[in-house]
Amino acid sequence: MDFDTIAAVATPLGEGGIAIIRVSGSDAIAAVDKIFKGRQKLSTVDSHTINYGHLIDENGETLEEVMVSVMRAPRTFTREDVVEVNCHGGIVSVKRVLDLVLAQGVRMAEPGEFTKRAFLNGRIDLSQAEAVIDLIRAKTDRAMKVALNQVQGKLSKLIGKLRQQLLELMAHIEVTIDYPEHDVDEVTRTLLSEKSRWVQGEIEKLLSTAKQGKILREGLATVIVGRPNVGKSSLLNSLLQEVKAIVTDVPGTTRDIIEEYVNVRGVPLRLVDTAGIRETEDIVERIGVEKSREMLGKADLVLLVLNFGEELEDEDRNLLAVVKPMNAIVIVNKTDLPQKIDMEEVRRLAGDLPLVTISVKEEEGIEQLEEVIASLFFSGSVQSDDLTYVSNSRHIQLLQEAYRTIGEAIEAVENGLPVDMVAFDIRRTWELLGEVVGDAVSDDLIDQIFSQFCLGK
Amino acid sequence: MDFDTIAAVATPLGEGGIAIIRVSGSDAIAAVDKIFKGRQKLSTVDSHTINYGHLIDENGETLEEVMVSVMRAPRTFTREDVVEVNCHGGIVSVKRVLDLVLAQGVRMAEPGEFTKRAFLNGRIDLSQAEAVIDLIRAKTDRAMKVALNQVQGKLSKLIGKLRQQLLELMAHIEVTIDYPEHDVDEVTRTLLSEKSRWVQGEIEKLLSTAKQGKILREGLATVIVGRPNVGKSSLLNSLLQEVKAIVTDVPGTTRDIIEEYVNVRGVPLRLVDTAGIRETEDIVERIGVEKSREMLGKADLVLLVLNFGEELEDEDRNLLAVVKPMNAIVIVNKTDLPQKIDMEEVRRLAGDLPLVTISVKEEEGIEQLEEVIASLFFSGSVQSDDLTYVSNSRHIQLLQEAYRTIGEAIEAVENGLPVDMVAFDIRRTWELLGEVVGDAVSDDLIDQIFSQFCLGK
Repeated sequence: MDFDTIAAVATPLGEGGIAIIRVSGSDAIAAVDKIFKGRQKLSTVDSHTINYGHLIDENGETLEEVMVSVMRAPRTFTREDVVEVNCHGGIVSVKRVLDLVLAQGVRMAEPGEFTKRAFLNGRIDLSQAEAVIDLIRAKTDRAMKVALNQVQGKLSKLIGKLRQQLLELMAHIEVTIDYPEHDVDEVTRTLLSEKSRWVQGEIEKLLSTAKQGKILREGLATVIVGRPNVGKSSLLNSLLQEVKAIVTDVPGTTRDIIEEYVNVRGVPLRLVDTAGIRETEDIVERIGVEKSREMLGKADLVLLVLNFGEELEDEDRNLLAVVKPMNAIVIVNKTDLPQKIDMEEVRRLAGDLPLVTISVKEEEGIEQLEEVIASLFFSGSVQSDDLTYVSNSRHIQLLQEAYRTIGEAIEAVENGLPVDMVAFDIRRTWELLGEVVGDAVSDDLIDQIFSQFCLGK
Repeated sequence: MDFDTIAAVATPLGEGGIAIIRVSGSDAIAAVDKIFKGRQKLSTVDSHTINYGHLIDENGETLEEVMVSVMRAPRTFTREDVVEVNCHGGIVSVKRVLDLVLAQGVRMAEPGEFTKRAFLNGRIDLSQAEAVIDLIRAKTDRAMKVALNQVQGKLSKLIGKLRQQLLELMAHIEVTIDYPEHDVDEVTRTLLSEKSRWVQGEIEKLLSTAKQGKILREGLATVIVGRPNVGKSSLLNSLLQEVKAIVTDVPGTTRDIIEEYVNVRGVPLRLVDTAGIRETEDIVERIGVEKSREMLGKADLVLLVLNFGEELEDEDRNLLAVVKPMNAIVIVNKTDLPQKIDMEEVRRLAGDLPLVTISVKEEEGIEQLEEVIASLFFSGSVQSDDLTYVSNSRHIQLLQEAYRTIGEAIEAVENGLPVDMVAFDIRRTWELLGEVVGDAVSDDLIDQIFSQFCLGK
């Protein structure tokens, strides 16, 4: 396809050593050539080369010292000609270079537009494109691995395999319909039923990864609750230390961006309202049991903290009752103090909830707590890195719908309904799976998907 | 020189389309080759080429999809072999790639270490290296231009010219000392005096740019004062709008970093304690006249705001008296209201201070205010973009010292003192100028200069 030429800053904004302005489209090389002064015109250099030179502004003055990468279609990110201008990092510098490039008849790219072109030009399918943003936003190694698997097309391949099966079934039915003299015999019905069940089973397997996939991608919304002075903020800080370890050796980190995320054995905890936790007192006391039940109910994980060194109070009992039906862990903190809490009562009130005793002060039990958190969300069987997780809401919805539709096909076959009804459901399943990889999705949907991207990608 | 191989993330940290891990040193290509899987081994590719492939971790698993730029010495930023790994932006992803590179026997670079190598390997001199960081931190186009001039060696060339003159003088004196039978005649003395005066004049010219250079580089520390309700915060917001315009089209900007800087016609105003301005009341009232005089005295520019729609109060009069000896602008705001202020009295109390009437609400007079700010710090004669500004404190100090020393030489010559005394001062001036460009500076000083850099540069 032939699109106009676009440009954007592809590196995060800030003071850094290098910034990149990425330009893509059939005019990319000519546009940058107009403002580039180097050993050679960019139009004459080989593809995939790096060229040293200067950018010259409209007044003939030198604007910047740059390295310009020239990559000719089709071996590029977008499958179009791509030019990347590497300049000194810095806000003003980057803005000036971008402005100069845009002045050459190049349009400012929309967020995600480079990846969108990679999709529209057929280099990657939609599920791969969607995973690119997951890769960028990954909060843990495992989340990154899952996203990378998807970028590399593991989900696409699996979906392709299922669609191939469905296509074969459709062909089979086609024959049966076209030659009505061949009645649908028992063998065909068995084949239809078996293959459909296999497809359904595969979709089910995929869907079973959805919850974990979403957790990996978005993090577990986690709330820490407890009476005043049980050690909520010190627990928070202790968990946050892990995140700090992730970033301390990379200066320039804006802590705000990530300090909400704690990486617990590959499970990203998104600590909800951490500022609130630091300051507020017991929420049950403040907003009442019903209201807090509602509020906590939205969390994926509730960490209820009790004090080992104090007797259980009614507030604690209230909280235990509130979190009992939730995904919660009961944490008895301050085991460094003389015991006053009645552990028997705690155990009884906690019911089936995991119970962990820790001392944040003495750094005891934190490992065990992390293990409990991890095992709560990742059973042993899904530890494998090879697993393809489904994490994208759009994919999950389509797969759920496909699961339902193929289920109807199976029912129709097994109840001996006419094959054209079966054919309809199978075709619909095939289409739904197609939408995952971007077959026949609407332009609006595509626009919406890519608008979530960051600029320059 | 032969250094070990270093690596660092060269792009700002954050969610961006692309991140770069830069590796420099004789092992750079071999180290990345160990973890790279592409069409070709990196050791065999041409210099200045971009190579698509994947990074493979210690378990043989694919870690990332990357573009690897290979640049062989000496045509590189550091004059060493440089490899740049372009990967998907994102905090976890970048960290993983960096870790993998570091695991190949590569050392984590110190801040500024790449630029330091460019200096140590003789690609740029010290003043050029120092300007690299100014380029990154530039707050306005003009500041960037000045930094770029310096990166490109305009200051170095000028310094070089002065040193050349001094060297010739030294040679001339040498001859006179070596052949004592030639007495120092009047002609020689005149020559010494004239050339030394010329050098001193050039140094003086350079020093005259220092104030403006520093302003361009560091911004004008600006304070807005005035009674409650005169419109301080709306003026602040009105000025800040300009900065917003700089960054709004680049998502991901952390506003905190730059919102303190306002670009007024190329003059960067660093708004001191803007949070304070937003909230606090009249500082004179709060901390007393003496104390506030002291506090405001530290500012490069004071904007005193009065209310057109109210009569002058004693607080206003106090403030006017306080700021009178400072670099201040008296701003009468709210001209949209019916006049109650006595402008005659304001004019009298303001004395020589520039006086501007504005209405922030009606957006009137802001242009004029900006003009006054700009003209206060940049007279017409220094508008030229060709001017080489001295902005670095270290350079200013050295130039001041050189100015003094060459002055002593001139005095010695003109008072008929022995030539060996003149020779000493001239040699010392030559050395001082040499330190600007990094001739014979100590390792400690070099370390200290580069430690101010950001990582990856």
